[in-house]
Amino acid sequence: MKMKSHSGPQGGGPLRDQMLAVLGPRGIVDDPLQIESMTKSWRDSWESIPLLVVQPQSAEEVQAVVRICAALGVSLVAQGGNTGLTGAGLPSADRNEVLLSLRRMNRTRSIDLDSDTMVVEAGCILEDVRNAARAAGRLFPLLLGAQGSCTIGGNIATNAGGINALRYGPMRDLVMGLEVVLADGRLWDGLKSLRKDNAGYDLKHLFIGSEGTLGIVTAAVLKLSTLPRSSGTALVGLDNPEAGLAWFRRLRTRFSEQLTACELIERVCIDTARKHIPNVVDPLDGRYPWYVLAEIATAEERADLEGPIGEAFAAALDAGEVSDGVIASSITQSNELWRLREAIPDAQRQEGVSFKHDISVPVSKVPEFIRVANEKLSAAFPGIRSFAFGHLGDGNIHFNPLQAAGEAASLWKSRLDEANRITHDVAVALGGSITAEHGVGLLRREELSFYKPSVDLDLMRSLKRALDPYNLFNPGKVLSKWPT
Amino acid sequence: MKMKSHSGPQGGGPLRDQMLAVLGPRGIVDDPLQIESMTKSWRDSWESIPLLVVQPQSAEEVQAVVRICAALGVSLVAQGGNTGLTGAGLPSADRNEVLLSLRRMNRTRSIDLDSDTMVVEAGCILEDVRNAARAAGRLFPLLLGAQGSCTIGGNIATNAGGINALRYGPMRDLVMGLEVVLADGRLWDGLKSLRKDNAGYDLKHLFIGSEGTLGIVTAAVLKLSTLPRSSGTALVGLDNPEAGLAWFRRLRTRFSEQLTACELIERVCIDTARKHIPNVVDPLDGRYPWYVLAEIATAEERADLEGPIGEAFAAALDAGEVSDGVIASSITQSNELWRLREAIPDAQRQEGVSFKHDISVPVSKVPEFIRVANEKLSAAFPGIRSFAFGHLGDGNIHFNPLQAAGEAASLWKSRLDEANRITHDVAVALGGSITAEHGVGLLRREELSFYKPSVDLDLMRSLKRALDPYNLFNPGKVLSKWPT
Repeated sequence: MKMKSHSGPQGGGPLRDQMLAVLGPRGIVDDPLQIESMTKSWRDSWESIPLLVVQPQSAEEVQAVVRICAALGVSLVAQGGNTGLTGAGLPSADRNEVLLSLRRMNRTRSIDLDSDTMVVEAGCILEDVRNAARAAGRLFPLLLGAQGSCTIGGNIATNAGGINALRYGPMRDLVMGLEVVLADGRLWDGLKSLRKDNAGYDLKHLFIGSEGTLGIVTAAVLKLSTLPRSSGTALVGLDNPEAGLAWFRRLRTRFSEQLTACELIERVCIDTARKHIPNVVDPLDGRYPWYVLAEIATAEERADLEGPIGEAFAAALDAGEVSDGVIASSITQSNELWRLREAIPDAQRQEGVSFKHDISVPVSKVPEFIRVANEKLSAAFPGIRSFAFGHLGDGNIHFNPLQAAGEAASLWKSRLDEANRITHDVAVALGGSITAEHGVGLLRREELSFYKPSVDLDLMRSLKRALDPYNLFNPGKVLSKWPT
Repeated sequence: MKMKSHSGPQGGGPLRDQMLAVLGPRGIVDDPLQIESMTKSWRDSWESIPLLVVQPQSAEEVQAVVRICAALGVSLVAQGGNTGLTGAGLPSADRNEVLLSLRRMNRTRSIDLDSDTMVVEAGCILEDVRNAARAAGRLFPLLLGAQGSCTIGGNIATNAGGINALRYGPMRDLVMGLEVVLADGRLWDGLKSLRKDNAGYDLKHLFIGSEGTLGIVTAAVLKLSTLPRSSGTALVGLDNPEAGLAWFRRLRTRFSEQLTACELIERVCIDTARKHIPNVVDPLDGRYPWYVLAEIATAEERADLEGPIGEAFAAALDAGEVSDGVIASSITQSNELWRLREAIPDAQRQEGVSFKHDISVPVSKVPEFIRVANEKLSAAFPGIRSFAFGHLGDGNIHFNPLQAAGEAASLWKSRLDEANRITHDVAVALGGSITAEHGVGLLRREELSFYKPSVDLDLMRSLKRALDPYNLFNPGKVLSKWPT
């Protein structure tokens, strides 16, 4: 891992002076450790030094920053909690861009319980928002591993997904209105708390998932949901992903939207979790090639969910779809099962080199994707070990095969592009996406331009040109640098 | 009502010849009665004669139509079932535009039960789609009064709402992918059946609700839901909209997403329905100023819903929130209650002149909107009679006050703009929208440009310019004619 000095002089001269004049000293970040925390990523190849790091505390200050950058012809990259997985929130070259951190904009502006809405600033931490909603007797459903450090603005910029998207949709479905600073420095006030609004084009969807390339989100109206009062957790062991799909259908048909999560887990994931993470249980007596972990929740107090889940399980057992299973009989047991699922990504990081993919396909195609991708990878990478888990009910699989045991890490790392091509060819041939929830950023930019038809790319470029004609916002992310 | 001859020679010459060459004789509509059915609207002021009426039968034919129009500099307006309420699907001036009917594109291309998706062409009738989904054991939830004649393409172009949007969202939330013919004649194939896809900007949301001004939707992937197996219907009488809101909150908290519809009905609506429509019952023994009709549905078979609805009702009675109520004990009784709600729009048309509004406000502001709007209208229009009903749970009220008894219709009609201004001022001051579900079209275009901040209008114009630089698609709808 390369180490860079962050203590060197940052863009002095007019840029710094002008920023200082509008933001004050607290609006400029000079502390090298703080700067490092904002520029370091899990891929050290993306570690670039920004020209200057600013942290405005209001939408007006963000507007001022944008206007200064526009006047000086300096581009900028917005950042929330720096938990992204694609480099979208990082400078793309040394001493070239202003890094604009939204972390100081972390106020809850209002909450409206009758309307089930909450207005928060972009720098609010997801977990804090979830806690504030819960304290008010509501649920904010987005749930990610990074919830303790990711921000609402980052969740919006990447259209974050997570475990509960099956029931509540991704971030896009949880946002009712936005406040956005545009590339010309103007503020778009789209902070509407309306469940229905057909007055003109829907502008908010343009910014959601655009990874900071079309505007800088400064605040949002979030949709809140009813707090579940009863829940049930079931884990079943089964032979193959086809059986997992049948089990998903059975639960979906019986529980409809009450089915909150439905996660597919390959056996190797459990073994890896138990190897590296303490206190991870082997949930069933036998070993099964695949598992499905499902959560069912209802607003009813003390609802009997064990009963109907048990009936569904008995029917699936009769039909030969599942081999064994457990229904959590306590919160402790439910937490234990979810701990297993949550331990997987960390455990995999410790296990060794893997080819990570975040694909989606139509739900019905998940089994075919896993089978065909594994066949093709095995042919090109003898000894490669399948490692698949993720959101079966959303057709979104984290497909992260592990290097062959005993092979040199460097050899595998050098063949990453080849593994990506094989895997993504299979997903795309099945009508799928090369990035279901992580986004594009720098990580998938070249692949995006390879896989997307030219019509799609042209439309995307038209939008970029219409909203950010001078390529001020996050140049080179999602789309190649502009103009191409 | 003015009558126009539709039998005159339609745009002969190169336009007709070229269309005939690519579409064949069945692709051109010459029958005057058929043309009249496509150009007549509930507002006769919008009845304009198109240059030519074409009805292509495939996306390729739509592309050819667009290319011919582009080459000849003739604009075009796309139309589905001609059930829109704002003139968005009608030519805006005589012998000036090609009317492109999508009605011949009415095939179901595929259905995927494991993925809960269905691919249909734009000209499919909503009711046919609902029936096809039901026959496959799934629910397509969009439900409108016009379901027997409106098309999926029109539902997408207007982002249709309706009764069930409370639970399932408006059309925007029910569309997973689109196929769209662009202004340069190219086809955008966005027919993805993915529940999660963060590969680049979300293009489909741009076209949904854009009323045919940015592209012509030719097909869509629709999201299907679990078919409810049990349902309960309750109607309560109460003193005021505040009590209605309290009852909504009570049901929402107890039933969460199982609360499918929650409609507010003013007493005058019931009287009007009973006056004009046969077999409409007065649902409760007493008369109450306001009523709320709610529907609760679950995927569980033979679920006891009467029990928990009854408990909620008893608690609301104790709290003094409701005065009386009935829980339907049979499908027949449930249908009777819904018949009452569905009779209202028709009955009002027969009753006399009214000022119709389709506003939305944050749910919490519905009572304030109704109170203040009525106060202000009464001051300007002595004797005006409040007439409010609609989707309480979505904050979307059809606020259609009736003319004073005995006054001349012509006098009131001439003051429509004044009534609109008063009503929409109140909605906008409460953070609301001047059109919740009907859209803009011609009806609300001038008001849209009055109420929308210039930033919003500039963004909308940028998008129009980016996607349809020569103003080929539906010029003068939503936004003023282009270039302004």
